[in-house]
Amino acid sequence: MKVAVLASTGMVGQKYISLLAKHPFLKISTLTGKSSVGKTYGEAVHWINQIPLPKEFVEMEIKDTDPKNVDADLIFSPLPSEAAREIEPSFIAAGYPVVSEASAHRMKDDVPLVVPEVNPHHLDLIKLQRSQNHTEGFVVTGPNCSAAGLVMVLKPLYEQLRIKKAIVTTMQALSGAGYQGVPSVAIIDNVIPYIPKEEEKIRAETLKILGDRENGSIKQAELKLSAMCNRVPTLDGHLATLYAESDIDLGVDQVTEALSSFKGIPQDLGLPTAPKTPVIVREELDRPQPRLDRLSGSVEGMSVIVGRIREGLDSKSIRLVLLTHNTIRGAAGNSILTAELLAAQGYLDGA
Amino acid sequence: MKVAVLASTGMVGQKYISLLAKHPFLKISTLTGKSSVGKTYGEAVHWINQIPLPKEFVEMEIKDTDPKNVDADLIFSPLPSEAAREIEPSFIAAGYPVVSEASAHRMKDDVPLVVPEVNPHHLDLIKLQRSQNHTEGFVVTGPNCSAAGLVMVLKPLYEQLRIKKAIVTTMQALSGAGYQGVPSVAIIDNVIPYIPKEEEKIRAETLKILGDRENGSIKQAELKLSAMCNRVPTLDGHLATLYAESDIDLGVDQVTEALSSFKGIPQDLGLPTAPKTPVIVREELDRPQPRLDRLSGSVEGMSVIVGRIREGLDSKSIRLVLLTHNTIRGAAGNSILTAELLAAQGYLDGA
Amino acid sequence: MKVAVLASTGMVGQKYISLLAKHPFLKISTLTGKSSVGKTYGEAVHWINQIPLPKEFVEMEIKDTDPKNVDADLIFSPLPSEAAREIEPSFIAAGYPVVSEASAHRMKDDVPLVVPEVNPHHLDLIKLQRSQNHTEGFVVTGPNCSAAGLVMVLKPLYEQLRIKKAIVTTMQALSGAGYQGVPSVAIIDNVIPYIPKEEEKIRAETLKILGDRENGSIKQAELKLSAMCNRVPTLDGHLATLYAESDIDLGVDQVTEALSSFKGIPQDLGLPTAPKTPVIVREELDRPQPRLDRLSGSVEGMSVIVGRIREGLDSKSIRLVLLTHNTIRGAAGNSILTAELLAAQGYLDGA
Amino acid sequence: MKVAVLASTGMVGQKYISLLAKHPFLKISTLTGKSSVGKTYGEAVHWINQIPLPKEFVEMEIKDTDPKNVDADLIFSPLPSEAAREIEPSFIAAGYPVVSEASAHRMKDDVPLVVPEVNPHHLDLIKLQRSQNHTEGFVVTGPNCSAAGLVMVLKPLYEQLRIKKAIVTTMQALSGAGYQGVPSVAIIDNVIPYIPKEEEKIRAETLKILGDRENGSIKQAELKLSAMCNRVPTLDGHLATLYAESDIDLGVDQVTEALSSFKGIPQDLGLPTAPKTPVIVREELDRPQPRLDRLSGSVEGMSVIVGRIREGLDSKSIRLVLLTHNTIRGAAGNSILTAELLAAQGYLDGA
Repeated sequence: MKVAVLASTGMVGQKYISLLAKHPFLKISTLTGKSSVGKTYGEAVHWINQIPLPKEFVEMEIKDTDPKNVDADLIFSPLPSEAAREIEPSFIAAGYPVVSEASAHRMKDDVPLVVPEVNPHHLDLIKLQRSQNHTEGFVVTGPNCSAAGLVMVLKPLYEQLRIKKAIVTTMQALSGAGYQGVPSVAIIDNVIPYIPKEEEKIRAETLKILGDRENGSIKQAELKLSAMCNRVPTLDGHLATLYAESDIDLGVDQVTEALSSFKGIPQDLGLPTAPKTPVIVREELDRPQPRLDRLSGSVEGMSVIVGRIREGLDSKSIRLVLLTHNTIRGAAGNSILTAELLAAQGYLDGA
Repeated sequence: MKVAVLASTGMVGQKYISLLAKHPFLKISTLTGKSSVGKTYGEAVHWINQIPLPKEFVEMEIKDTDPKNVDADLIFSPLPSEAAREIEPSFIAAGYPVVSEASAHRMKDDVPLVVPEVNPHHLDLIKLQRSQNHTEGFVVTGPNCSAAGLVMVLKPLYEQLRIKKAIVTTMQALSGAGYQGVPSVAIIDNVIPYIPKEEEKIRAETLKILGDRENGSIKQAELKLSAMCNRVPTLDGHLATLYAESDIDLGVDQVTEALSSFKGIPQDLGLPTAPKTPVIVREELDRPQPRLDRLSGSVEGMSVIVGRIREGLDSKSIRLVLLTHNTIRGAAGNSILTAELLAAQGYLDGA
Repeated sequence: MKVAVLASTGMVGQKYISLLAKHPFLKISTLTGKSSVGKTYGEAVHWINQIPLPKEFVEMEIKDTDPKNVDADLIFSPLPSEAAREIEPSFIAAGYPVVSEASAHRMKDDVPLVVPEVNPHHLDLIKLQRSQNHTEGFVVTGPNCSAAGLVMVLKPLYEQLRIKKAIVTTMQALSGAGYQGVPSVAIIDNVIPYIPKEEEKIRAETLKILGDRENGSIKQAELKLSAMCNRVPTLDGHLATLYAESDIDLGVDQVTEALSSFKGIPQDLGLPTAPKTPVIVREELDRPQPRLDRLSGSVEGMSVIVGRIREGLDSKSIRLVLLTHNTIRGAAGNSILTAELLAAQGYLDGA
Repeated sequence: MKVAVLASTGMVGQKYISLLAKHPFLKISTLTGKSSVGKTYGEAVHWINQIPLPKEFVEMEIKDTDPKNVDADLIFSPLPSEAAREIEPSFIAAGYPVVSEASAHRMKDDVPLVVPEVNPHHLDLIKLQRSQNHTEGFVVTGPNCSAAGLVMVLKPLYEQLRIKKAIVTTMQALSGAGYQGVPSVAIIDNVIPYIPKEEEKIRAETLKILGDRENGSIKQAELKLSAMCNRVPTLDGHLATLYAESDIDLGVDQVTEALSSFKGIPQDLGLPTAPKTPVIVREELDRPQPRLDRLSGSVEGMSVIVGRIREGLDSKSIRLVLLTHNTIRGAAGNSILTAELLAAQGYLDGA
């Protein structure tokens, strides 16, 4: 299967190339860019990964981001939100399936916002899109990098343990803001207690992902959720504390069991990018830690790591810490898993 | 007034020396140490402050930590908890007023645990100590470095705005763990979501400080409080997010007003180390930040800086961010202010 | 005396405002900017200093950078080099004395490149400028932030101890690259062994500053100099190692004495921004360190701190470490001292 | 072949376990420790690597560091220098080949100090040890972590290009000082321009490694070498600048060729831990960088990465930057490669 990566020289674009280099059936056929059009990828990219740029991409020419330049069965779009709003519709109109990370379309009624282990059934909104738009093209989105891991933890807590209220404080890594996002003089020896629009996104997207499919839309989950977001001097890996209240008694063992045993369709289907254990629970007092744990699990960066599960204010509340790799599970990795699921469920056959 | 500083070569010991160098009436007469006894302070100390070591201390000889070596009207003790448990009683027995930062005695029934703006009336436990112990000596303690700032924010919220529940996540600076506390290889590009015993201390100490004086003790405040503590790569300044619930409606303006106008006896008395505004509220979206704001206010490091006051989950809850300078308001500075208050209220006259 | 600060919202522009806020005779009358024209300074600036923005500037309106908008006796220009090349000549033509930090004009034959303690006699090139340009306006430049401290150390070594060869490796702070200069994801847990054009600038500027005045120009000093420049994760303070060879025997004591006793006209005149000891020699094995020592000395950030003076490869060579505050001695502070010297020597009387 | 790892819970001990976990013929049979004797490795170790602790070691019991507890064909000793001085001789006396990283025995006349690509012929000192000590046991040492990479670069420059003088400035990573070596409060936003004894070690060890075998010893190389050592806030990877002078003309191409083509016996023999290219030359202006390049090459961390090769002061001098992974090539990796070479050359047959 051939895939195109838009905005391919950016941080998330680079992550796609790293992750897809050895993918069993997704092969990159087109790379697009903006200021770098016409250059080879090797010339254009400021490659900033520890893994060297795979050789097959060094000489690949960067194309303008336009459907007519693309030869692919699926489009990965890590376009910035503004650009996504303008450009992605042209790919959909041209009949392409688009897996997008931009916030532009996430909250639209007929657009699935998907973490494959959590709400794969939302993908049937694709049928709605196709019939409404009179095209085989469609868009599926992935959530904000902090929400991606949070919903994997909240899903079993909400559905099995009747969590009704959740207070989250995030300590987010620098890569989440993009390469130029946070100047070094702003963050060394510092924490910035604000990330524009992040708290609103985490709340809205989480409630959509955990929500039920109904008619032509998703009904928001019944969960009171508040996020307080901070930028800290880590390179990768969003850490978060979670305090959650249920209306029933919660034991540490019960919460540990619910999280550890959480699995989804990607695990049942054995998709290549599906981690064996989506939520890994650590017993040590001082874990997870971003630098030590962000790549742990059977597929690097795809599991959420949880630790310090302990009582909250009383027997009906709980506290824990969770870690999400923001550019893998929170971006490129989640989209690749989504593409694998789309393929497995036949959504790409009509395209 | 002559004061002695115990454990004077440590990080907090050094902070006392910096802060007292220009104090109007507290003059350091004795410095004590352990492995450095007999050396001059200049030889013994690994001075790590931007401000150079004041000249008058370079040649001062370090004494063994024993009451018989001390010539002072008051003792500042930043001894580690274990040592404090053993050594401080000997100073009390010898008739000295001791202002201690150790956790050893904080939670004892007859020991005041004091932030001077918040619970100065708890100091009358000194009379109880004196009559029970048959000595003019006594001990007053200051709280854990995170609790010190938290109580200054919770005091007006709890008393004026009927806050009943508070969920706190801290992002604590490295200096809070002492000079050897956190190895650099453990924390660069990382966050450690655990600080031993910190969460329990913050809860217990906050409830004591906000509590009422009754009979021979303090009655714990009626507040549900949960802390989740993290170590982040900042040098000084503990940042925290606070989510709080009341049983009445809370407006942002009302909370801002309650915090901004909070004042205590130290302000009324014009004590030299009392900041004009104990709680400074910032309006900018992205403040307070540890590096930029930890020294702001009329007395460096003595004010708590609050920002991002906004609605919580509904009209009865609130969210905000607060910053406390952990080695000043959270340690040496708070103790110096306590000493000033003890002097002003006549507690040192009998000594 | 009234001064204007161009590009006033940038990092160096902010430094001017901090440093001039309490200056005895230089008063800021005009602030200019580019995208912020028409706003108040308080609105426009992203103030990033620990010291709060002085109140008198909060409401000051930002003017367009044009001579007709300025009411001042002298112009401080921290314009970027490109802009300086275009804009500074218009101020000179309008009769203004301009003290510039841009590299644009530094190497021109008739432009003084000045560190006031090192080569104040180069200022007489001003007469040449005035007569050639038929205007009372002129430009004086300050050197690259790494060269500023280096010449203060090399001056006595070159003139008194006949240093003929110098090998320098710099470890430069992030603020030297400007606020957006180094992304945090590029530098945390990293060193970048390259700074564009820096090595060439350090060499050329150092040889000009140490050179002799001759006819209508400066004759380059006879010193072989090589710089290898690195960006390290420090906020302020450029550290450098220096290996230097002479053709005579050098003793550690002799080098220490030559550096410690180095003084210039600014010290003789007692200029307000002149540090008492321009080069401070530390005896400790592990100093200077950027965070601990960058602000030391009688005028914060204006002294160069030297340490670890020891033999080089043999008795005719020497090794040492030096530290320069890059935004003070390496930028705004050096320019303010230059302005004070210009005033003291009558260069501003004709303007 | 069975190997024992002494001091196995320390940072370098952990590195041995990571590197040997998949080794084709070296199998860990014994782990020793000090305070952790009797515990399982899983209980005792504070495992701080991104790679999880391999399962086979979790339950392995830690033995006291004594020859009688060991069942092995070779001993890897990352003991601290003091302990090495006392303990290693008992293993030698008991007939064990010891590969040591301690500085204790490095400079002894009959002890090979080896980087396998550079001076494998020095290993014949083993025969001398055996005959003098009347035991089949012997000790081979590896160099200081900074010297290990430096000699790989200097070897071809010294032998092929007649380099006579070298001035080195290092920017060394924190892991080089051990887990507790550098407190975080000492190094964040800072550089420490001093590492105890490091400069002397680099000089002496480099001259021994590059020296000729003669009679019962090594004759020091004829190279003037000066090192200036700094600790910077990077986790792994020692970066260094090198200025070098020859008595013949040096071209950039010639230096590049000499370094790129450098190979040794380990490459000829195809030893498993031998990198295909011992010295990798990068063409980009801003490489090598510690975080991006420390693991590059065919065997992670075993190649030295060189960049920015350019003229020095004139045609007979050169400047460049080099990067060495300090815990792999500078410690455990170099020792494992040495063990492989010892096995290949029959030095372990007699044991």
